[in-house]
Amino acid sequence: MTSYTDDSVTVLGLGPMGRALAGAFLNAGLRTTVWNRTPGRDRELVERGAVSVRSAEEAVAASGLTVVCVVNYDASDAILRRDAVTAALNGRTAVSLTADTPGRARDTERWATGHGIWYLDGAIMTPATTIGTADAVVIYSGPEELYREHRPVLNALGGTHTHLGEEIGRAAAYDIALLDIFWTAMAGYAHALAVAKAEGVTARELAPFAKGIGAILPPIFEEVAEEVDTGSFSGEDNPITSATSSMAHVVHTSEAHGIDAGVMRAAEGMARRVIGLGHGTDGFMRVTEMLGRR
Amino acid sequence: MTSYTDDSVTVLGLGPMGRALAGAFLNAGLRTTVWNRTPGRDRELVERGAVSVRSAEEAVAASGLTVVCVVNYDASDAILRRDAVTAALNGRTAVSLTADTPGRARDTERWATGHGIWYLDGAIMTPATTIGTADAVVIYSGPEELYREHRPVLNALGGTHTHLGEEIGRAAAYDIALLDIFWTAMAGYAHALAVAKAEGVTARELAPFAKGIGAILPPIFEEVAEEVDTGSFSGEDNPITSATSSMAHVVHTSEAHGIDAGVMRAAEGMARRVIGLGHGTDGFMRVTEMLGRR
Repeated sequence: MTSYTDDSVTVLGLGPMGRALAGAFLNAGLRTTVWNRTPGRDRELVERGAVSVRSAEEAVAASGLTVVCVVNYDASDAILRRDAVTAALNGRTAVSLTADTPGRARDTERWATGHGIWYLDGAIMTPATTIGTADAVVIYSGPEELYREHRPVLNALGGTHTHLGEEIGRAAAYDIALLDIFWTAMAGYAHALAVAKAEGVTARELAPFAKGIGAILPPIFEEVAEEVDTGSFSGEDNPITSATSSMAHVVHTSEAHGIDAGVMRAAEGMARRVIGLGHGTDGFMRVTEMLGRR
Repeated sequence: MTSYTDDSVTVLGLGPMGRALAGAFLNAGLRTTVWNRTPGRDRELVERGAVSVRSAEEAVAASGLTVVCVVNYDASDAILRRDAVTAALNGRTAVSLTADTPGRARDTERWATGHGIWYLDGAIMTPATTIGTADAVVIYSGPEELYREHRPVLNALGGTHTHLGEEIGRAAAYDIALLDIFWTAMAGYAHALAVAKAEGVTARELAPFAKGIGAILPPIFEEVAEEVDTGSFSGEDNPITSATSSMAHVVHTSEAHGIDAGVMRAAEGMARRVIGLGHGTDGFMRVTEMLGRR
Protein backbone atom coordinates (compact mmCIF):
# COMPACT_ATOMS: atom_id res chain seq x y z
CA MET A 1 0.00 0.00 0.00
CA THR A 2 1.43 3.33 -1.00
CA SER A 3 -0.91 5.69 0.82
CA TYR A 4 0.93 8.18 2.94
CA THR A 5 0.42 7.82 6.71
CA ASP A 6 1.80 9.62 9.71
CA ASP A 7 0.54 10.73 13.10
CA SER A 8 -1.65 13.45 11.63
CA VAL A 9 -5.26 13.54 10.56
CA THR A 10 -7.61 16.04 8.92
CA VAL A 11 -11.31 16.40 9.70
CA LEU A 12 -13.58 18.03 7.10
CA GLY A 13 -16.99 19.02 8.49
CA LEU A 14 -17.43 20.36 12.01
CA GLY A 15 -21.04 19.66 12.89
CA PRO A 16 -21.66 17.97 16.27
CA MET A 17 -20.27 14.65 14.99
CA GLY A 18 -17.27 16.18 13.16
CA ARG A 19 -16.32 18.15 16.29
CA ALA A 20 -16.56 14.96 18.37
CA LEU A 21 -14.27 13.13 15.90
CA ALA A 22 -11.69 15.97 15.90
CA GLY A 23 -11.84 16.14 19.71
CA ALA A 24 -11.11 12.41 20.01
CA PHE A 25 -8.14 12.71 17.61
CA LEU A 26 -6.77 15.63 19.67
CA ASN A 27 -7.19 13.64 22.88
CA ALA A 28 -5.16 10.84 21.29
CA GLY A 29 -2.30 13.30 20.66
CA LEU A 30 -2.63 13.38 16.88
CA ARG A 31 -1.78 16.52 14.92
CA THR A 32 -5.35 17.37 13.90
CA THR A 33 -6.22 19.79 11.11
CA VAL A 34 -9.83 20.95 10.90
CA TRP A 35 -11.95 22.73 8.30
CA ASN A 36 -15.61 23.56 7.89
CA ARG A 37 -17.41 25.22 4.98
CA THR A 38 -19.04 27.74 7.34
CA PRO A 39 -16.21 29.36 9.36
CA GLY A 40 -16.21 29.80 13.14
CA ARG A 41 -17.00 26.21 14.07
CA ASP A 42 -13.36 25.40 14.94
CA ARG A 43 -12.81 27.85 17.80
CA GLU A 44 -12.95 25.41 20.72
CA LEU A 45 -10.96 22.78 18.79
CA VAL A 46 -8.21 25.31 17.97
CA GLU A 47 -8.01 26.24 21.67
CA ARG A 48 -7.41 22.54 22.31
CA GLY A 49 -4.57 22.45 19.76
CA ALA A 50 -6.22 21.81 16.40
CA VAL A 51 -4.66 23.38 13.31
CA SER A 52 -7.02 25.75 11.53
CA VAL A 53 -6.63 26.31 7.78
CA ARG A 54 -8.38 28.55 5.26
CA SER A 55 -9.34 26.05 2.57
CA ALA A 56 -10.29 22.43 2.12
CA GLU A 57 -7.25 21.91 -0.16
CA GLU A 58 -4.89 23.12 2.57
CA ALA A 59 -6.71 20.88 5.03
CA VAL A 60 -6.33 17.68 3.01
CA ALA A 61 -2.70 18.53 2.15
CA ALA A 62 -1.87 18.71 5.87
CA SER A 63 -2.40 14.98 6.57
CA GLY A 64 -2.12 11.57 4.94
CA LEU A 65 -5.61 10.73 6.17
CA THR A 66 -8.70 12.91 5.79
CA VAL A 67 -11.93 12.04 7.57
CA VAL A 68 -15.03 13.53 5.93
CA CYS A 69 -18.11 13.99 8.09
CA VAL A 70 -20.75 16.19 6.48
CA VAL A 71 -24.53 15.93 6.06
CA ASN A 72 -24.58 13.73 2.94
CA TYR A 73 -22.65 12.94 -0.25
CA ASP A 74 -24.01 16.00 -2.05
CA ALA A 75 -22.19 18.08 0.56
CA SER A 76 -19.16 15.79 0.44
CA ASP A 77 -18.92 15.98 -3.36
CA ALA A 78 -19.20 19.78 -3.26
CA ILE A 79 -16.03 19.81 -1.13
CA LEU A 80 -13.92 16.94 -2.51
CA ARG A 81 -14.68 17.21 -6.23
CA ARG A 82 -13.33 20.73 -6.64
CA ASP A 83 -10.15 20.45 -8.77
CA ALA A 84 -7.82 21.91 -6.14
CA VAL A 85 -9.04 19.51 -3.45
CA THR A 86 -9.05 16.48 -5.76
CA ALA A 87 -5.46 17.27 -6.75
CA ALA A 88 -4.37 17.71 -3.12
CA LEU A 89 -5.91 14.32 -2.23
CA ASN A 90 -3.90 12.46 -4.88
CA GLY A 91 -1.93 9.67 -3.18
CA ARG A 92 -3.70 10.33 0.13
CA THR A 93 -6.60 8.58 1.87
CA ALA A 94 -10.14 9.82 2.39
CA VAL A 95 -12.37 8.03 4.91
CA SER A 96 -15.98 9.06 4.56
CA LEU A 97 -17.98 8.93 7.77
CA THR A 98 -20.80 10.72 5.96
CA ALA A 99 -24.13 8.87 5.85
CA ASP A 100 -25.67 8.20 2.44
CA THR A 101 -26.66 5.30 0.21
CA PRO A 102 -24.53 2.35 -1.03
CA GLY A 103 -24.89 3.76 -4.55
CA ARG A 104 -23.21 7.03 -3.58
CA ALA A 105 -20.33 5.13 -1.94
CA ARG A 106 -19.83 3.12 -5.16
CA ASP A 107 -19.88 6.29 -7.25
CA THR A 108 -17.33 7.89 -4.93
CA GLU A 109 -15.03 4.87 -5.19
CA ARG A 110 -15.07 5.17 -9.01
CA TRP A 111 -14.23 8.87 -8.73
CA ALA A 112 -11.48 8.25 -6.16
CA THR A 113 -9.87 5.46 -8.21
CA GLY A 114 -9.92 7.71 -11.28
CA HIS A 115 -8.00 10.40 -9.38
CA GLY A 116 -5.43 8.30 -7.52
CA ILE A 117 -7.16 8.73 -4.17
CA TRP A 118 -7.42 5.94 -1.56
CA TYR A 119 -10.95 5.68 -0.25
CA LEU A 120 -12.75 3.91 2.59
CA ASP A 121 -16.42 4.31 3.35
CA GLY A 122 -17.68 4.15 6.91
CA ALA A 123 -20.71 4.83 9.07
CA ILE A 124 -20.97 5.81 12.72
CA MET A 125 -23.78 3.86 14.40
CA THR A 126 -23.83 5.68 17.74
CA PRO A 127 -24.45 9.30 18.85
CA ALA A 128 -21.71 11.96 18.87
CA THR A 129 -21.50 11.69 22.67
CA THR A 130 -20.13 8.12 22.36
CA ILE A 131 -17.13 9.16 20.24
CA GLY A 132 -13.87 8.61 22.15
CA THR A 133 -15.64 6.21 24.55
CA ALA A 134 -16.04 2.43 24.66
CA ASP A 135 -19.62 2.85 23.37
CA ALA A 136 -18.72 4.13 19.88
CA VAL A 137 -19.61 1.76 17.04
CA VAL A 138 -18.10 2.43 13.60
CA ILE A 139 -18.37 0.20 10.52
CA TYR A 140 -16.23 0.35 7.38
CA SER A 141 -15.98 -1.09 3.90
CA GLY A 142 -13.37 -0.89 1.15
CA PRO A 143 -9.83 -2.29 0.72
CA GLU A 144 -8.94 -4.26 3.85
CA GLU A 145 -5.25 -3.41 3.67
CA LEU A 146 -6.12 0.29 3.58
CA TYR A 147 -8.39 -0.18 6.59
CA ARG A 148 -5.60 -1.95 8.53
CA GLU A 149 -3.15 0.80 7.65
CA HIS A 150 -5.34 3.56 9.10
CA ARG A 151 -6.82 1.56 11.93
CA PRO A 152 -4.31 2.92 14.51
CA VAL A 153 -5.50 6.47 13.88
CA LEU A 154 -9.20 5.49 13.67
CA ASN A 155 -8.84 3.65 17.00
CA ALA A 156 -8.62 7.10 18.60
CA LEU A 157 -12.40 7.31 18.06
CA GLY A 158 -12.81 4.58 20.70
CA GLY A 159 -15.28 1.70 20.89
CA THR A 160 -15.78 -1.03 18.32
CA HIS A 161 -14.54 -0.79 14.73
CA THR A 162 -15.63 -3.42 12.22
CA HIS A 163 -14.48 -3.89 8.64
CA LEU A 164 -17.46 -5.43 6.82
CA GLY A 165 -15.82 -6.28 3.51
CA GLU A 166 -14.02 -4.95 0.48
CA GLU A 167 -17.18 -4.07 -1.45
CA ILE A 168 -17.37 -0.33 -0.87
CA GLY A 169 -21.19 -0.17 -0.56
CA ARG A 170 -21.32 -2.56 2.37
CA ALA A 171 -21.00 -0.08 5.25
CA ALA A 172 -23.73 2.11 3.74
CA ALA A 173 -25.93 -0.97 3.19
CA TYR A 174 -25.65 -1.90 6.88
CA ASP A 175 -26.18 1.74 7.83
CA ILE A 176 -29.36 2.00 5.73
CA ALA A 177 -30.75 -1.26 7.13
CA LEU A 178 -30.04 -0.16 10.71
CA LEU A 179 -31.52 3.32 10.14
CA ASP A 180 -34.57 1.55 8.70
CA ILE A 181 -34.99 -0.40 11.94
CA PHE A 182 -34.30 2.59 14.17
CA TRP A 183 -36.53 5.19 12.54
CA THR A 184 -39.38 2.78 11.91
CA ALA A 185 -39.31 1.79 15.59
CA MET A 186 -39.19 5.43 16.66
CA ALA A 187 -42.16 6.19 14.37
CA GLY A 188 -44.03 3.36 16.11
CA TYR A 189 -43.17 4.73 19.54
CA ALA A 190 -44.13 8.33 18.62
CA HIS A 191 -47.46 7.04 17.29
CA ALA A 192 -48.07 4.77 20.29
CA LEU A 193 -47.58 7.73 22.63
CA ALA A 194 -50.15 9.75 20.66
CA VAL A 195 -52.71 6.92 20.93
CA ALA A 196 -51.89 6.43 24.63
CA LYS A 197 -52.37 10.14 25.29
CA ALA A 198 -55.77 10.11 23.57
CA GLU A 199 -56.66 7.24 25.94
CA GLY A 200 -55.51 9.24 28.98
CA VAL A 201 -52.19 7.40 29.43
CA THR A 202 -49.09 9.59 29.77
CA ALA A 203 -45.74 8.85 28.15
CA ARG A 204 -44.15 8.35 31.56
CA GLU A 205 -46.85 5.83 32.50
CA LEU A 206 -46.34 3.87 29.28
CA ALA A 207 -42.53 4.15 29.23
CA PRO A 208 -41.72 1.26 31.64
CA PHE A 209 -43.86 -1.10 29.54
CA ALA A 210 -42.46 0.34 26.30
CA LYS A 211 -38.97 -0.39 27.63
CA GLY A 212 -40.12 -3.96 28.26
CA ILE A 213 -41.21 -4.28 24.64
CA GLY A 214 -37.90 -2.74 23.51
CA ALA A 215 -36.01 -5.29 25.59
CA ILE A 216 -37.66 -8.29 23.91
CA LEU A 217 -36.73 -7.05 20.41
CA PRO A 218 -33.01 -7.99 20.34
CA PRO A 219 -33.52 -11.71 21.08
CA ILE A 220 -36.42 -11.81 18.60
CA PHE A 221 -34.24 -10.08 15.96
CA GLU A 222 -31.65 -12.82 16.43
CA GLU A 223 -34.13 -15.69 16.47
CA VAL A 224 -35.96 -14.75 13.26
CA ALA A 225 -32.77 -13.94 11.30
CA GLU A 226 -32.27 -17.69 10.89
CA GLU A 227 -35.81 -18.06 9.46
CA VAL A 228 -35.20 -15.29 6.95
CA ASP A 229 -31.89 -16.72 5.71
CA THR A 230 -33.26 -20.25 5.37
CA GLY A 231 -36.64 -19.16 3.99
CA SER A 232 -38.60 -21.29 6.48
CA PHE A 233 -41.06 -19.08 8.32
CA SER A 234 -42.66 -20.69 11.36
CA GLY A 235 -46.04 -19.26 12.27
CA GLU A 236 -46.87 -22.00 14.76
CA ASP A 237 -46.82 -19.77 17.86
CA ASN A 238 -47.89 -16.59 16.16
CA PRO A 239 -49.21 -16.78 12.58
CA ILE A 240 -49.25 -13.61 10.48
CA THR A 241 -53.08 -13.68 10.56
CA SER A 242 -52.84 -13.07 14.31
CA ALA A 243 -50.36 -10.22 13.76
CA THR A 244 -52.72 -8.54 11.28
CA SER A 245 -55.54 -8.82 13.80
CA SER A 246 -53.40 -6.91 16.35
CA MET A 247 -52.43 -4.38 13.69
CA ALA A 248 -56.07 -3.81 12.76
CA HIS A 249 -56.87 -3.13 16.44
CA VAL A 250 -54.14 -0.48 16.50
CA VAL A 251 -55.41 1.15 13.30
CA HIS A 252 -59.00 1.08 14.53
CA THR A 253 -58.22 2.58 17.96
CA SER A 254 -55.96 5.24 16.44
CA GLU A 255 -58.41 6.36 13.78
CA ALA A 256 -61.32 6.34 16.27
CA HIS A 257 -59.37 9.15 17.99
CA GLY A 258 -58.74 10.95 14.67
CA ILE A 259 -55.05 10.01 14.80
CA ASP A 260 -53.44 9.20 11.45
CA ALA A 261 -52.40 5.53 11.32
CA GLY A 262 -50.57 5.60 7.99
CA VAL A 263 -47.46 3.80 9.27
CA MET A 264 -49.43 0.90 10.78
CA ARG A 265 -51.76 0.81 7.76
CA ALA A 266 -48.69 0.34 5.53
CA ALA A 267 -47.30 -2.35 7.86
CA GLU A 268 -50.67 -4.12 7.95
CA GLY A 269 -50.82 -3.87 4.15
CA MET A 270 -47.51 -5.76 3.86
CA ALA A 271 -48.81 -8.49 6.16
CA ARG A 272 -52.10 -8.75 4.25
CA ARG A 273 -50.22 -9.10 0.95
CA VAL A 274 -48.40 -12.09 2.47
CA ILE A 275 -51.76 -13.64 3.47
CA GLY A 276 -53.12 -12.92 -0.02
CA LEU A 277 -50.17 -14.81 -1.47
CA GLY A 278 -51.26 -17.90 0.48
CA HIS A 279 -48.88 -17.70 3.45
CA GLY A 280 -51.36 -16.90 6.24
CA THR A 281 -50.11 -19.70 8.48
CA ASP A 282 -46.49 -18.47 8.24
CA GLY A 283 -44.92 -16.09 10.73
CA PHE A 284 -44.71 -12.33 10.21
CA MET A 285 -41.14 -12.48 8.86
CA ARG A 286 -42.48 -13.94 5.60
CA VAL A 287 -42.89 -10.21 4.83
CA THR A 288 -39.14 -10.00 4.14
CA GLU A 289 -39.37 -12.69 1.45
CA MET A 290 -42.51 -11.08 -0.05
CA LEU A 291 -40.85 -7.64 -0.26
CA GLY A 292 -37.86 -9.11 -2.09
CA ARG A 293 -39.89 -10.87 -4.79
CA ARG A 294 -39.26 -9.77 -8.37
CA MET B 1 -67.40 -7.32 47.38
CA THR B 2 -69.93 -10.07 46.92
CA SER B 3 -68.38 -12.00 44.05
CA TYR B 4 -68.03 -15.68 44.79
CA THR B 5 -64.46 -16.96 45.11
CA ASP B 6 -62.95 -20.32 45.93
CA ASP B 7 -59.97 -22.38 44.82
CA SER B 8 -61.45 -23.09 41.40
CA VAL B 9 -61.15 -21.36 38.04
CA THR B 10 -62.63 -21.80 34.58
CA VAL B 11 -60.78 -21.13 31.33
CA LEU B 12 -62.81 -20.44 28.17
CA GLY B 13 -60.76 -20.67 24.99
CA LEU B 14 -58.02 -23.28 24.52
CA GLY B 15 -55.75 -21.84 21.87
CA PRO B 16 -51.99 -21.88 22.67
CA MET B 17 -52.44 -19.06 25.23
CA GLY B 18 -55.60 -20.48 26.82
CA ARG B 19 -53.93 -23.87 27.20
CA ALA B 20 -50.91 -22.21 28.84
CA LEU B 21 -53.22 -20.39 31.30
CA ALA B 22 -55.11 -23.58 32.19
CA GLY B 23 -51.83 -25.47 32.58
CA ALA B 24 -50.50 -22.86 35.02
CA PHE B 25 -53.74 -23.02 37.07
CA LEU B 26 -53.47 -26.83 37.20
CA ASN B 27 -49.82 -26.60 38.29
CA ALA B 28 -50.94 -24.30 41.12
CA GLY B 29 -53.34 -26.99 42.33
CA LEU B 30 -56.54 -25.16 41.42
CA ARG B 31 -59.65 -27.06 40.35
CA THR B 32 -59.58 -26.01 36.70
CA THR B 33 -62.54 -26.34 34.35
CA VAL B 34 -61.87 -25.90 30.66
CA TRP B 35 -64.02 -25.38 27.57
CA ASN B 36 -63.38 -24.58 23.94
CA ARG B 37 -65.86 -23.91 21.14
CA THR B 38 -64.14 -26.49 18.92
CA PRO B 39 -63.95 -29.75 20.91
CA GLY B 40 -60.81 -31.87 21.32
CA ARG B 41 -58.47 -29.14 22.48
CA ASP B 42 -58.70 -30.15 26.15
CA ARG B 43 -57.28 -33.68 25.94
CA GLU B 44 -53.84 -33.03 27.42
CA LEU B 45 -55.30 -30.71 30.08
CA VAL B 46 -57.85 -33.33 31.14
CA GLU B 47 -55.04 -35.90 31.46
CA ARG B 48 -53.38 -33.43 33.83
CA GLY B 49 -56.57 -33.15 35.92
CA ALA B 50 -58.69 -30.47 34.28
CA VAL B 51 -62.46 -30.83 34.38
CA SER B 52 -64.01 -31.07 30.93
CA VAL B 53 -67.59 -29.90 30.42
CA ARG B 54 -69.97 -29.91 27.46
CA SER B 55 -71.08 -26.31 27.37
CA ALA B 56 -69.85 -22.80 28.18
CA GLU B 57 -72.72 -22.38 30.69
CA GLU B 58 -71.59 -25.49 32.59
CA ALA B 59 -68.02 -24.19 32.46
CA VAL B 60 -68.77 -20.76 33.98
CA ALA B 61 -71.10 -22.34 36.59
CA ALA B 62 -68.22 -24.54 37.80
CA SER B 63 -66.12 -21.67 39.23
CA GLY B 64 -66.41 -18.25 40.81
CA LEU B 65 -63.84 -16.92 38.37
CA THR B 66 -63.86 -17.42 34.62
CA VAL B 67 -60.87 -16.40 32.50
CA VAL B 68 -61.74 -15.75 28.85
CA CYS B 69 -58.93 -16.04 26.31
CA VAL B 70 -60.17 -16.12 22.73
CA VAL B 71 -59.10 -14.37 19.52
CA ASN B 72 -61.03 -11.12 20.01
CA TYR B 73 -64.20 -9.66 21.55
CA ASP B 74 -66.37 -10.80 18.64
CA ALA B 75 -65.47 -14.35 19.66
CA SER B 76 -65.83 -13.53 23.35
CA ASP B 77 -69.29 -11.97 22.86
CA ALA B 78 -70.43 -14.99 20.85
CA ILE B 79 -69.71 -17.13 23.91
CA LEU B 80 -70.64 -14.91 26.88
CA ARG B 81 -73.70 -13.12 25.50
CA ARG B 82 -75.76 -16.23 24.94
CA ASP B 83 -78.62 -16.12 27.48
CA ALA B 84 -77.70 -19.36 29.25
CA VAL B 85 -74.06 -18.25 29.72
CA THR B 86 -75.00 -14.73 30.79
CA ALA B 87 -77.42 -16.17 33.38
CA ALA B 88 -74.79 -18.61 34.69
CA LEU B 89 -72.26 -15.75 35.08
CA ASN B 90 -74.63 -13.72 37.29
CA GLY B 91 -72.86 -12.96 40.58
CA ARG B 92 -69.61 -14.42 39.26
CA THR B 93 -66.46 -12.80 37.86
CA ALA B 94 -65.20 -12.80 34.28
CA VAL B 95 -61.60 -11.74 33.60
CA SER B 96 -61.00 -11.15 29.91
CA LEU B 97 -57.46 -11.85 28.76
CA THR B 98 -58.67 -11.44 25.18
CA ALA B 99 -56.94 -8.71 23.16
CA ASP B 100 -59.11 -6.04 21.60
CA THR B 101 -59.66 -2.27 21.74
CA PRO B 102 -60.46 -0.07 24.78
CA GLY B 103 -63.89 0.59 23.25
CA ARG B 104 -64.79 -3.11 23.32
CA ALA B 105 -63.72 -3.38 26.98
CA ARG B 106 -65.99 -0.41 27.84
CA ASP B 107 -68.89 -1.96 25.97
CA THR B 108 -68.35 -5.26 27.79
CA GLU B 109 -68.31 -3.50 31.17
CA ARG B 110 -71.72 -1.95 30.38
CA TRP B 111 -73.07 -5.36 29.40
CA ALA B 112 -71.59 -7.04 32.51
CA THR B 113 -72.96 -4.40 34.90
CA GLY B 114 -76.38 -4.74 33.29
CA HIS B 115 -76.37 -8.49 33.99
CA GLY B 116 -74.91 -8.56 37.51
CA ILE B 117 -71.54 -9.89 36.32
CA TRP B 118 -68.22 -8.79 37.84
CA TYR B 119 -65.75 -7.93 35.11
CA LEU B 120 -62.04 -7.18 34.85
CA ASP B 121 -60.21 -6.57 31.60
CA GLY B 122 -56.62 -7.68 31.14
CA ALA B 123 -53.93 -8.18 28.54
CA ILE B 124 -51.01 -10.60 28.42
CA MET B 125 -47.89 -8.81 27.19
CA THR B 126 -45.61 -11.85 26.80
CA PRO B 127 -45.72 -15.09 24.74
CA ALA B 128 -47.62 -18.21 25.88
CA THR B 129 -44.31 -19.86 26.78
CA THR B 130 -43.79 -17.30 29.60
CA ILE B 131 -47.05 -18.20 31.38
CA GLY B 132 -46.32 -19.81 34.74
CA THR B 133 -42.77 -18.40 34.75
CA ALA B 134 -41.20 -15.25 36.20
CA ASP B 135 -41.22 -13.71 32.69
CA ALA B 136 -44.99 -13.42 32.31
CA VAL B 137 -46.33 -9.83 32.22
CA VAL B 138 -50.07 -9.29 32.65
CA ILE B 139 -51.87 -5.95 32.98
CA TYR B 140 -55.39 -5.35 34.26
CA SER B 141 -57.98 -2.62 34.61
CA GLY B 142 -61.34 -2.42 36.34
CA PRO B 143 -62.48 -2.35 40.00
CA GLU B 144 -59.38 -2.53 42.19
CA GLU B 145 -61.13 -4.46 44.96
CA LEU B 146 -62.22 -7.09 42.45
CA TYR B 147 -58.63 -7.33 41.19
CA ARG B 148 -57.33 -7.79 44.75
CA GLU B 149 -59.92 -10.47 45.44
CA HIS B 150 -58.87 -12.62 42.46
CA ARG B 151 -55.18 -11.82 42.58
CA PRO B 152 -54.32 -15.02 44.54
CA VAL B 153 -55.70 -17.16 41.70
CA LEU B 154 -54.23 -14.96 38.93
CA ASN B 155 -50.82 -15.17 40.65
CA ALA B 156 -50.71 -18.78 39.47
CA LEU B 157 -49.93 -17.36 36.00
CA GLY B 158 -46.52 -16.25 37.34
CA GLY B 159 -44.47 -13.14 36.61
CA THR B 160 -45.58 -9.55 37.04
CA HIS B 161 -49.20 -8.50 37.43
CA THR B 162 -50.07 -4.79 37.34
CA HIS B 163 -53.41 -3.14 37.98
CA LEU B 164 -53.41 0.01 35.83
CA GLY B 165 -56.54 1.68 37.13
CA GLU B 166 -60.29 1.39 37.59
CA GLU B 167 -61.16 2.72 34.12
CA ILE B 168 -61.91 -0.51 32.28
CA GLY B 169 -60.34 0.57 28.95
CA ARG B 170 -56.91 1.17 30.42
CA ALA B 171 -55.40 -2.31 29.99
CA ALA B 172 -56.51 -2.40 26.36
CA ALA B 173 -55.13 1.13 25.83
CA TYR B 174 -51.71 0.04 27.10
CA ASP B 175 -51.97 -3.16 25.06
CA ILE B 176 -52.77 -1.25 21.86
CA ALA B 177 -49.91 1.23 22.42
CA LEU B 178 -47.44 -1.61 23.08
CA LEU B 179 -48.64 -3.62 20.07
CA ASP B 180 -48.19 -0.44 18.04
CA ILE B 181 -44.53 -0.24 19.12
CA PHE B 182 -43.90 -3.96 18.67
CA TRP B 183 -45.45 -4.50 15.25
CA THR B 184 -44.12 -1.25 13.81
CA ALA B 185 -40.61 -2.22 14.94
CA MET B 186 -41.02 -5.72 13.49
CA ALA B 187 -42.20 -4.19 10.19
CA GLY B 188 -39.04 -2.07 10.19
CA TYR B 189 -36.85 -5.11 10.84
CA ALA B 190 -38.58 -7.23 8.17
CA HIS B 191 -38.11 -4.39 5.66
CA ALA B 192 -34.50 -3.76 6.69
CA LEU B 193 -33.68 -7.42 6.09
CA ALA B 194 -35.20 -7.23 2.60
CA VAL B 195 -33.06 -4.18 1.76
CA ALA B 196 -29.98 -5.81 3.30
CA LYS B 197 -30.55 -8.96 1.23
CA ALA B 198 -30.82 -6.92 -1.97
CA GLU B 199 -27.43 -5.42 -1.01
CA GLY B 200 -25.92 -8.87 -0.46
CA VAL B 201 -26.05 -8.76 3.35
CA THR B 202 -27.61 -11.80 5.05
CA ALA B 203 -29.95 -11.60 8.07
CA ARG B 204 -27.38 -13.37 10.21
CA GLU B 205 -24.72 -10.83 9.22
CA LEU B 206 -26.98 -7.90 10.06
CA ALA B 207 -28.48 -9.44 13.24
CA PRO B 208 -25.67 -8.53 15.68
CA PHE B 209 -25.90 -4.89 14.61
CA ALA B 210 -29.71 -5.00 14.61
CA LYS B 211 -29.54 -6.27 18.20
CA GLY B 212 -27.31 -3.27 19.00
CA ILE B 213 -29.96 -0.92 17.61
CA GLY B 214 -32.65 -2.79 19.56
CA ALA B 215 -30.62 -2.38 22.75
CA ILE B 216 -30.44 1.42 22.46
CA LEU B 217 -34.23 1.74 22.11
CA PRO B 218 -35.28 1.21 25.77
CA PRO B 219 -33.15 4.06 27.20
CA ILE B 220 -34.25 6.33 24.34
CA PHE B 221 -37.91 5.41 24.99
CA GLU B 222 -37.46 6.48 28.60
CA GLU B 223 -35.52 9.66 27.81
CA VAL B 224 -37.98 11.06 25.27
CA ALA B 225 -41.10 10.22 27.32
CA GLU B 226 -40.31 13.25 29.46
CA GLU B 227 -40.16 15.47 26.34
CA VAL B 228 -43.53 14.21 25.15
CA ASP B 229 -45.27 14.76 28.50
CA THR B 230 -43.84 18.28 28.92
CA GLY B 231 -44.23 19.24 25.26
CA SER B 232 -40.61 20.47 24.95
CA PHE B 233 -38.93 18.69 22.08
CA SER B 234 -35.17 19.11 21.96
CA GLY B 235 -33.68 18.73 18.50
CA GLU B 236 -30.27 20.06 19.48
CA ASP B 237 -28.38 16.78 18.96
CA ASN B 238 -30.61 15.36 16.27
CA PRO B 239 -33.16 17.67 14.64
CA ILE B 240 -36.09 16.14 12.78
CA THR B 241 -34.64 17.52 9.51
CA SER B 242 -31.69 15.17 10.02
CA ALA B 243 -34.05 12.25 10.74
CA THR B 244 -35.97 12.89 7.50
CA SER B 245 -32.68 12.92 5.59
CA SER B 246 -31.90 9.42 6.95
CA MET B 247 -35.44 8.28 6.18
CA ALA B 248 -35.16 9.54 2.61
CA HIS B 249 -31.93 7.53 2.17
CA VAL B 250 -33.78 4.41 3.30
CA VAL B 251 -36.69 5.04 0.90
CA HIS B 252 -34.32 5.79 -1.98
CA THR B 253 -32.16 2.68 -1.45
CA SER B 254 -35.21 0.45 -0.98
CA GLU B 255 -37.04 1.66 -4.07
CA ALA B 256 -33.85 1.53 -6.19
CA HIS B 257 -34.04 -2.25 -5.54
CA GLY B 258 -37.76 -2.35 -6.38
CA ILE B 259 -38.63 -2.95 -2.71
CA ASP B 260 -41.82 -1.27 -1.48
CA ALA B 261 -41.00 1.39 1.13
CA GLY B 262 -44.55 2.27 2.16
CA VAL B 263 -43.91 2.03 5.91
CA MET B 264 -40.89 4.34 5.81
CA ARG B 265 -42.66 6.67 3.35
CA ALA B 266 -45.50 7.01 5.88
CA ALA B 267 -43.03 7.60 8.73
CA GLU B 268 -41.13 10.17 6.65
CA GLY B 269 -44.45 11.81 5.80
CA MET B 270 -45.22 12.33 9.50
CA ALA B 271 -41.80 13.90 10.03
CA ARG B 272 -42.19 16.17 7.00
CA ARG B 273 -45.59 17.34 8.27
CA VAL B 274 -43.86 18.39 11.50
CA ILE B 275 -41.27 20.34 9.49
CA GLY B 276 -44.05 21.90 7.40
CA LEU B 277 -45.70 23.08 10.61
CA GLY B 278 -42.52 25.04 11.43
CA HIS B 279 -40.87 22.63 13.89
CA GLY B 280 -37.85 21.54 11.82
CA THR B 281 -35.37 22.30 14.59
CA ASP B 282 -37.30 20.15 17.10
CA GLY B 283 -36.53 16.50 17.74
CA PHE B 284 -38.38 13.64 16.06
CA MET B 285 -40.77 13.14 19.00
CA ARG B 286 -42.62 16.34 18.01
CA VAL B 287 -44.44 13.82 15.77
CA THR B 288 -46.44 12.66 18.80
CA GLU B 289 -47.75 16.18 19.45
CA MET B 290 -48.51 16.70 15.72
CA LEU B 291 -50.49 13.44 15.50
CA GLY B 292 -52.59 14.42 18.50
CA ARG B 293 -53.62 17.83 17.11
CA ARG B 294 -57.33 18.38 16.54
